[in-house]
Amino acid sequence: MQWVKVLGGAAGAAALLGLGIILGHFAIPKGADPAPSASASQDLDPEILEVVMGLLSASRIRENLRELSREPHPASSRQDEALVQLLLQHWQDPESGLDSVETSSYEVLLSFPSPEQPNRVAIVGPAGNISFSCRQSKENLTGEQGGPDVLPPYAAYAPPGTPQGLLVYANRGSEEDFKELQAQGIRLNGTIALTRYGGVGRGAKAVNAAKHQVAGVLVYTDPADINDGHSLPNETFPHSWHLPPSGVERGSYYEYFGDPLTPYLPAKPSSFRLDPDTAPGFPPIPIQPIGFEDAQVLLCQVNMSVYNRLELRNSSNVLGVIRGAAEPDRYVLYGNHRDSWVHGAVDPSSGTAVLLELSRVLGTLVKKGIWRPRRSIVFASWGAEEFGLIGSTEFTEEFSSKLRERAVAYVNVDISVFANATLRAQGTPPVQSVLFSAAKQISAPGPGGLSIYDNWLRYFNRSSPAYGLVPSLGSLGAGSDYAPFIHFLGISSMDIAYTYDRSKTSARIYPTYHTAFDTFGYVDKFVDPGFGSHQAVARTAGSVLLRLSDSLFLPLNVSDYSETLRSFLQAAQQHLGAQLEGEGISLAPLVTAVGKFEREAVALSRHISALQKGTFDPLQVRMLNDQLMLLERAFLNPRAFPEERYYSHVLWAPRHSSVATFPGLANACARALNTDPGSAAWAEVRRQLSIVVAALEGAAATLRPVADL
Amino acid sequence: MQWVKVLGGAAGAAALLGLGIILGHFAIPKGADPAPSASASQDLDPEILEVVMGLLSASRIRENLRELSREPHPASSRQDEALVQLLLQHWQDPESGLDSVETSSYEVLLSFPSPEQPNRVAIVGPAGNISFSCRQSKENLTGEQGGPDVLPPYAAYAPPGTPQGLLVYANRGSEEDFKELQAQGIRLNGTIALTRYGGVGRGAKAVNAAKHQVAGVLVYTDPADINDGHSLPNETFPHSWHLPPSGVERGSYYEYFGDPLTPYLPAKPSSFRLDPDTAPGFPPIPIQPIGFEDAQVLLCQVNMSVYNRLELRNSSNVLGVIRGAAEPDRYVLYGNHRDSWVHGAVDPSSGTAVLLELSRVLGTLVKKGIWRPRRSIVFASWGAEEFGLIGSTEFTEEFSSKLRERAVAYVNVDISVFANATLRAQGTPPVQSVLFSAAKQISAPGPGGLSIYDNWLRYFNRSSPAYGLVPSLGSLGAGSDYAPFIHFLGISSMDIAYTYDRSKTSARIYPTYHTAFDTFGYVDKFVDPGFGSHQAVARTAGSVLLRLSDSLFLPLNVSDYSETLRSFLQAAQQHLGAQLEGEGISLAPLVTAVGKFEREAVALSRHISALQKGTFDPLQVRMLNDQLMLLERAFLNPRAFPEERYYSHVLWAPRHSSVATFPGLANACARALNTDPGSAAWAEVRRQLSIVVAALEGAAATLRPVADL
Repeated sequence: MQWVKVLGGAAGAAALLGLGIILGHFAIPKGADPAPSASASQDLDPEILEVVMGLLSASRIRENLRELSREPHPASSRQDEALVQLLLQHWQDPESGLDSVETSSYEVLLSFPSPEQPNRVAIVGPAGNISFSCRQSKENLTGEQGGPDVLPPYAAYAPPGTPQGLLVYANRGSEEDFKELQAQGIRLNGTIALTRYGGVGRGAKAVNAAKHQVAGVLVYTDPADINDGHSLPNETFPHSWHLPPSGVERGSYYEYFGDPLTPYLPAKPSSFRLDPDTAPGFPPIPIQPIGFEDAQVLLCQVNMSVYNRLELRNSSNVLGVIRGAAEPDRYVLYGNHRDSWVHGAVDPSSGTAVLLELSRVLGTLVKKGIWRPRRSIVFASWGAEEFGLIGSTEFTEEFSSKLRERAVAYVNVDISVFANATLRAQGTPPVQSVLFSAAKQISAPGPGGLSIYDNWLRYFNRSSPAYGLVPSLGSLGAGSDYAPFIHFLGISSMDIAYTYDRSKTSARIYPTYHTAFDTFGYVDKFVDPGFGSHQAVARTAGSVLLRLSDSLFLPLNVSDYSETLRSFLQAAQQHLGAQLEGEGISLAPLVTAVGKFEREAVALSRHISALQKGTFDPLQVRMLNDQLMLLERAFLNPRAFPEERYYSHVLWAPRHSSVATFPGLANACARALNTDPGSAAWAEVRRQLSIVVAALEGAAATLRPVADL
Repeated sequence: MQWVKVLGGAAGAAALLGLGIILGHFAIPKGADPAPSASASQDLDPEILEVVMGLLSASRIRENLRELSREPHPASSRQDEALVQLLLQHWQDPESGLDSVETSSYEVLLSFPSPEQPNRVAIVGPAGNISFSCRQSKENLTGEQGGPDVLPPYAAYAPPGTPQGLLVYANRGSEEDFKELQAQGIRLNGTIALTRYGGVGRGAKAVNAAKHQVAGVLVYTDPADINDGHSLPNETFPHSWHLPPSGVERGSYYEYFGDPLTPYLPAKPSSFRLDPDTAPGFPPIPIQPIGFEDAQVLLCQVNMSVYNRLELRNSSNVLGVIRGAAEPDRYVLYGNHRDSWVHGAVDPSSGTAVLLELSRVLGTLVKKGIWRPRRSIVFASWGAEEFGLIGSTEFTEEFSSKLRERAVAYVNVDISVFANATLRAQGTPPVQSVLFSAAKQISAPGPGGLSIYDNWLRYFNRSSPAYGLVPSLGSLGAGSDYAPFIHFLGISSMDIAYTYDRSKTSARIYPTYHTAFDTFGYVDKFVDPGFGSHQAVARTAGSVLLRLSDSLFLPLNVSDYSETLRSFLQAAQQHLGAQLEGEGISLAPLVTAVGKFEREAVALSRHISALQKGTFDPLQVRMLNDQLMLLERAFLNPRAFPEERYYSHVLWAPRHSSVATFPGLANACARALNTDPGSAAWAEVRRQLSIVVAALEGAAATLRPVADL
């Protein structure tokens, strides 16, 4: 699929302006910041927005990507640190750099294969002879995948061990899968379970297996899941974007996120650390990923040799700031991780390439004295995301007070382009409107002349009671660095990317994900030739960033939470109502709380309209913006889910039930089902109901006129 | 001791102005609020401050007190609800009321003696015959202590039961006291322990006793502790302020605070409740308070009959608001509880009488259009404090998000006058400066012509490295309604009162505390004849309230935390350093963190000075004030002390060690002492050290220039 890069609409027109013309157009001389008092009323300037859209260059993104993905750069490696220097160089550039830049390093527990003793998976004959070893086949097909710096496939944080046993195919390694095997009378004790990626989390496969006394786990990438069934060398990379038979998905098998030894504390060298031998969250038994080439030949007795080892390593974040002109204490954060498993062209360098281009364009405007945002912008390049969102989590731990008080929103662009069909965004309801505003004003790449918004609507949509048919936002799990921001600190967050046409592929994710085949050549040839989708993401995320940092009135539509709450409530009534009623638990307080939130949100919207029409008053606007910024915080309750590390947001904590409702309530109901009336499980249902009611009532109270209680 | 009311200094001069003159002096017509934009620069007006000081009337406070303490009004009683109506009437007064008033009711678990079966303590002869019963003597000596509405003495939340056993004198009922008895070979199993008030918390006496299989506990008030040794009827009330032999101190024996069944949740009717049979914090065995008259005759075999019962009751808070003119979303809270054990003239009505007078004076200025504070003022009359700070705690639970975001400070005036020698204040370091400023400008009651500050300095003082000899502030425990504000929400808080000359009395607390003798007559005759000390507290607290609510720059001197941190650090180095070193634990990160905080605080002070001299910019001032308001929040860590309910402030959590340092560190060190190296207790020491280092580093980060990370 090839896309012709066509600039259209406002962004295209702006692109015709050279920077010289722009400089002439804006009369503010270089270095002369507007005085703070003059900028109290500063608002988003549509012309600046157009200029930024026009300056964001696909070819520069492509060059960034080439540079970023030139070498494998796993977290804390020499090459990762070289990229830290590259970012510093960009962000300290006198012509296009930022106001201030710093690196911040944490000492974190990572896991690596032993360079001396390679992990091995082998078939052992009845006499103990090795008849076959995996990974004899090389991943290096095009010359891009080789070299001593390529980390061999391994399961990060899997314990070392050399189990040997009969091979049992365990599908996806879910709890149900093992129960099914047990029900079939298959003896699992001491076996090696062969599982395929997907379905449940990586680490969960080992956790589930260990419960059945399985001795070791293998995980392979099934062509049915990743390649739309294609598995032959001539129909896979380098002949298509499909994963070759030798490709192996790496990944972290740690259950939580953040540095495993310093939960809730920044991983400074002096910080208290858990004992790695007893710290929770590591896979309980050896586990090793393999390619499907190897998976298909495995049979009978298998021997695994895993020699992974834990290491304390220094991992760096790079942080660059553009100081806000009017409200420097309000931060709009924009970030992506830097580390990859191998070259990581798609994951994460496609996002970092966009980050660098966006910071270049905004930095240039700042350095030339053309523009300075109303609020501060913080660009972040996180370290060690692949091991469990470590750099971003440690950052939120170190600056929790400051961020909780001052962060307006967090914009995450990790993989910027999975594929080039459509925009895809995840986020909490308050960010929906700003995403829509941005997407409506930018042309989609490719033919058709649609806006990004209209194109998006074709692929992902839902019927909104308030707005009719709109693109549907996904909700935020813990797949990238937004997780600590939304779940731990309650900062409105989003993740933006270009992605697949699902009518054309059912791949679980882009086929070379976390393999040595995720290279510049792969992106340039198969993922986004011409880099139009990269540019589209840069423009969308850039427009969102500008709107959040420069609009006088924060473009966070907190009223959009009403729709979510109403739908959660309806799901609870429909799917849990009868079960709850049977236990004498009424949803009436929840109905009241949702109604109260809706009414206060409507009243606040009216207040906003009145303020926007009235005479400008800096304090009135600030007070309103504080309400909008802090609404998300009102859903935090650090005591709601004591067993779910970091998850404090009562609306977006992990939900282990199929009922799309308040997660604490859904989970508690699922656990209480079939327990006796009056059980502790039913008490927990009541507690969770009260927790969400109190959170909604408390949130509604923050929306009321500020002098009312 | 009699005080002549002498008005002096600025307040005296202002008092000469009649309200008519004031009205003429201030040109703003009634009802015409200054437009918000006009008030963005509103600052404290010294003339208004003088007017308020002058209008606060001792005789009105006296009349308030007479009205408030006319009848016994324990929490949730008919009389307590009548006082709710009285407060509503005052605060809704068209001439002197507030902008808005509301009551808010919670359904909370209280504990009362049974009206049908009185609790009884009796001496039983060898044949089972009752030879003596306590409480045959009446508390009603002056006709003020009688009536059906006087709650008989009881230990709130003590379980019912009728234990009988040999009497053992157990001093104060501390852990050490029971261990000492055991060491002496005294058999405790099945005994009744006679203990005296003081030393350890009320409930702790029962907890400690139960560990030694004691069957029941009696608590009496020892004349040595409360009466400077006086115990004869003719040397006690009504002949002096000393407690008569029949007086019995009531009180709550619940271990935590807040409604016992709804921790962390507002006690709304629908809220999840713990099972009262298993909820923690209640005394494990029957316990009953008695007078010293009875205590001295008890011997041998004692029979206790306790018939207390738990009841769900509605208890009300009353909340009145004066809307802020410029920053209505910033709240300065001022509160006291309303409920008393009996008439409660000192506790709490002396505080409520001041509250009503202060709200009347400020309400009058607002109603007449003379003045409106920059920020909102919230007056609160809390319910059910005596049972465990219940009304205030439920309020902080219900509005946790809003208060955490917007509360500037909480001013508590519970007992306003213990005695009339000197001001006494407790608070966190940021409120020291505003207390000093207020106290310097007001004349102390009584002869001598000293300011309240200079008089205070004579009684409580310390040598401050920064300021030299200054009055010393006490730290905030959990003795009154400030506890949930400071410990749970991290809101800078203070408690203000007039108190004893310790050279003249060593009474544990004023003698009639929590007895039926705490009446209007007692206050009028013995505690504060002329009510000059009440007026002094009204002026001090009123001045603090005005300064906090009206000053353009918040008068919270966060730099004063530096001195506390430095002293905590030195105590840790001096008293724990060797112990820590022996375990290989270095205090170096703490030294670094304290130093960082000090440096940032100094830099911030310079920034404040520059801002104060520069051109007024509403956003700059707001940003700075946000830093000052929120500094206290940066010391919160809800995960620091999982076993200490509500306590999240890492500097002021309960300290069970004599070393005056960071409480988490001190407590952990005390527990780790004599455990093996590498024990869990030592790990907890390391964890607590990291927690406080992270909090200090995070707090220092919030003081930095706001665009820096």
